[in-house]
Amino acid sequence: MNQLFSVEIIISNKPQARDPEGETIIRDLVHKTGYESVKEIRTGKLLTIQIDASSQEDARDRALLMCNDLRLYNPVAHSISVRVRS
Amino acid sequence: MNQLFSVEIIISNKPQARDPEGETIIRDLVHKTGYESVKEIRTGKLLTIQIDASSQEDARDRALLMCNDLRLYNPVAHSISVRVRS
Repeated sequence: MNQLFSVEIIISNKPQARDPEGETIIRDLVHKTGYESVKEIRTGKLLTIQIDASSQEDARDRALLMCNDLRLYNPVAHSISVRVRS
Repeated sequence: MNQLFSVEIIISNKPQARDPEGETIIRDLVHKTGYESVKEIRTGKLLTIQIDASSQEDARDRALLMCNDLRLYNPVAHSISVRVRS
């Protein structure tokens, strides 16, 4: 029997790619105000979805299929991580 | 002795607030293409920061202090969650 799962999808720039948004935050805000202990900031997008599925694996598969099919991210530039929370 | 910790900061609209971006994605993209098992989408911002700290608690406190001090989020409209990963 199906139930609702909460799935967290994180879309971020690939590690080898630059992250201009994070670079700007750290250079023009964080370091200019003296927070020297912060060494790097990378930004990303979070989608929290409620999805009807038969199991945690099914929820994960459905979420990933949707992200790929609907091009919610660009596989060339972004990496994606999917976590089922409940 | 200090070491580098990876801290994930998630900034999202408060649960009682509307999330227009998520509503648009689900209404105009997800449901129009037949992904009926998806019931809700809420969006958020992820900041992954590398921070020099003496412990996991110290890393968490420093990250939270920075977010509040530099107004990286709006406490009236957003909720924030901080997780230390290593």
